[in-house]
Amino acid sequence: MAACRRKITVHPSTKHVTVSLLPKVHVNIILFQPPEVEHPLARSDPRAVHLLEVLRRRTGDTFDAGLLNGPRGRGTIEEIGADFLRLSFVWGESPPSLSLIHVIVGLPRPQTARDILREVTALGVTALHFVRTDKGEASYAGSSLWKSTEWRECVINGAAQAFCTRLPEVTHGDTLAEAIARLPAGTSRLALDNYEAATALNPGNLPAGKPAAIALGAERGWSAAERDLLRASGFTLVHLGPRVLRTETACIAAVTLLKARLNWT
Amino acid sequence: MAACRRKITVHPSTKHVTVSLLPKVHVNIILFQPPEVEHPLARSDPRAVHLLEVLRRRTGDTFDAGLLNGPRGRGTIEEIGADFLRLSFVWGESPPSLSLIHVIVGLPRPQTARDILREVTALGVTALHFVRTDKGEASYAGSSLWKSTEWRECVINGAAQAFCTRLPEVTHGDTLAEAIARLPAGTSRLALDNYEAATALNPGNLPAGKPAAIALGAERGWSAAERDLLRASGFTLVHLGPRVLRTETACIAAVTLLKARLNWT
Repeated sequence: MAACRRKITVHPSTKHVTVSLLPKVHVNIILFQPPEVEHPLARSDPRAVHLLEVLRRRTGDTFDAGLLNGPRGRGTIEEIGADFLRLSFVWGESPPSLSLIHVIVGLPRPQTARDILREVTALGVTALHFVRTDKGEASYAGSSLWKSTEWRECVINGAAQAFCTRLPEVTHGDTLAEAIARLPAGTSRLALDNYEAATALNPGNLPAGKPAAIALGAERGWSAAERDLLRASGFTLVHLGPRVLRTETACIAAVTLLKARLNWT
Repeated sequence: MAACRRKITVHPSTKHVTVSLLPKVHVNIILFQPPEVEHPLARSDPRAVHLLEVLRRRTGDTFDAGLLNGPRGRGTIEEIGADFLRLSFVWGESPPSLSLIHVIVGLPRPQTARDILREVTALGVTALHFVRTDKGEASYAGSSLWKSTEWRECVINGAAQAFCTRLPEVTHGDTLAEAIARLPAGTSRLALDNYEAATALNPGNLPAGKPAAIALGAERGWSAAERDLLRASGFTLVHLGPRVLRTETACIAAVTLLKARLNWT
């Protein structure tokens, strides 16, 4: 779907860079923290590398830019120095609000978590809570993904893919009860369950236009105590049919159905 | 979501295998071609490696097995030899039919195609056609993914993930017109389009329970001529909101909405 690709012109000073060593990014807008745009951007910053080596921009070229949780606009490369890029910006309007969807998911293996962070952010949810679950693998909570800023980079990449500046609220390591307690009052509540759900998740199950929460266990699903807690907290157990889906695919599918019920707003 | 994981017992003869060198498989059932089950399975076969090193099965242990496009059942490891495993099988019933969903997608970069082959198969569609498009990158059609049997391995892995034996019909390299001509009469037809679609894809747009086709352009979308062809062939252009999704995520989202309209059958 529509990446921002334009005519490729190889910049003489950069054509010998080894592309396979570049960070892998899929972005349609380059996002900055507000303080960052006051200063030159290091040539070693992944965004500078992306501008020069993937988008092949040169001095005077423009690009789609955004301020995190702020407006979108256009950036211009004013100068390409040996160590820094000097950029200027013209800011426009902020993107539409995020969808009123809250996702709770059992902490999965780190590679799965990366995919969920990026793709569920791209879909535009308001909040994403990775929770400890009874049947989950406890060591996943200690992954370098969560100990470093890597999880946040996945979220920013997802927003940039979606041409959005807004980031969801993300938490990790809380209990299921703690994550449920964070949900706003009046939120429709569904939990995916392969074992005890009697009905399929269908947008028609949900009141139109209302905030909604979806909870997914990770690989091994929910414990009996967690099912009791979900039911007592107003969650309806639903399924996605008899086929066994990867956790990341089930997340995309469930959020898709909630987005459809909100008519993709 | 629910992988078949059981108590781990390390087999003495295998505990020194370097796990990082093993092929990466995510399967919930081990699938075989019908003629294969008449013969011993080579220890070097990825399925043998998966049985011994991931599932940690020993002589006398059983596992979920299936015959491609045939029944599911239980396999038993009768003997673990130096070069071969001797297996026996008891077959049961065939899994439910695939969903009456046909997917047409512009040939994407090979890594994206791998994800689509696996995840769209896991979701259980009847047919998946990768087509040449006007704005597509022509070289993708010549990838080793398509020249070798790798594309078929992705499909089998998707079925195995979903605990299913049935494989979709897959074609690659036809034109959009040729793929449209393959669709059964009476199929509801939708095409994703970020630029000219007036309405969002919503299960409510579709007649319930009827076969449906969804067409997606790859990264750069459809040409004007392709939009004309789609409209002339009975396709309605629809979108998934203003956010830009990766092709593989858009595929999962679109198939999810068609599956919901078929009530996940």
